[in-house]
Amino acid sequence: MKGVLIVLSGPSGVGKGTVCQALLNKQPGLKLSVSVTTRPPRTGEVEGVSYYFVSKKKFFELLAQDKLLEWAHTYDFFYGTPCEAVEHVLNQGEDLILEIDVQGGMQVKQRFSSAITIFLYPPSMEELLHRLKKRASDSPEDIQKRQHWAAKEMQMSTQYDYVVVNDLVENAVSKIQAILTAEKCRRMSKAQ
Amino acid sequence: MKGVLIVLSGPSGVGKGTVCQALLNKQPGLKLSVSVTTRPPRTGEVEGVSYYFVSKKKFFELLAQDKLLEWAHTYDFFYGTPCEAVEHVLNQGEDLILEIDVQGGMQVKQRFSSAITIFLYPPSMEELLHRLKKRASDSPEDIQKRQHWAAKEMQMSTQYDYVVVNDLVENAVSKIQAILTAEKCRRMSKAQ
Repeated sequence: MKGVLIVLSGPSGVGKGTVCQALLNKQPGLKLSVSVTTRPPRTGEVEGVSYYFVSKKKFFELLAQDKLLEWAHTYDFFYGTPCEAVEHVLNQGEDLILEIDVQGGMQVKQRFSSAITIFLYPPSMEELLHRLKKRASDSPEDIQKRQHWAAKEMQMSTQYDYVVVNDLVENAVSKIQAILTAEKCRRMSKAQ
Repeated sequence: MKGVLIVLSGPSGVGKGTVCQALLNKQPGLKLSVSVTTRPPRTGEVEGVSYYFVSKKKFFELLAQDKLLEWAHTYDFFYGTPCEAVEHVLNQGEDLILEIDVQGGMQVKQRFSSAITIFLYPPSMEELLHRLKKRASDSPEDIQKRQHWAAKEMQMSTQYDYVVVNDLVENAVSKIQAILTAEKCRRMSKAQ
């Protein structure tokens, strides 16, 4: 049976990266899809592991060749998911997770209708705004942009298959693990 | 939010009762729906806990009054689920499990489209036939009837939302728990 493609999405600042990393630690069979981005690396990010860091020129070439499953323009940067890598992993029967923003999530669902889309929800809007402010790497203008954007992103949760509240990372992780288990039982039904 | 109604179904002999009981022990918030039946009690079965044991006359009265959510005629006996009890539990926000045969499962799905239907699958057809033979309470004719019926019942798995293989009771239980967790996240999405 083909692997399951999970799209983990949610507003900026909700903790997608932290939940995704904790999930990968607890679910050894699950692979992380690595995106390409024109954003410069943050401290500690590693080429080919965190992202493939590319120039704008290179990014537009990939787009022109239709080699991106989804792409997004957030703030001043571009992000995208290379198609071939995704298909290769799923065809080998391995599960794959994409940690992307809501624009990208909806694009993936359109092209991969079998993708499982999960929207990570903050415990409250106040908590989300608080988390955005804590990001030391962002300037005040960036924080304000992010807050405005996060409010818009929250409205997209109804388009997702599942909503998981990120109250505690371990709770969110075990819920996503349950969703993955359940989805495999769902596919068993179609496969009989 | 309303409770989740789980329909646990599968062929005769697959171990629905054992899995259901183990699940109830591990999931304290989950209630078991108690069916009415015209079958005489087996050793150890308790009135109002295992079943409500009723006469054929009483069963037909319940049917005539449309007080059964589903009913089935298996071998020589009738089984049914009282509507009011199911609705009462769900409206209180509690989850409920119905352990019923495949005829009943499909009837419930028709009336309660939000019911989650799970088909319990044997590890193999050989194993299922072996389990049916081991039931000391059945006569050889009963066993043959059951085997014939089980083969027919197996074909219904594609009509169910989920398939769970009952290889080990604890595996089956943890998969059903995962399905319940996932379904609550699914409803969160619709509720936003």
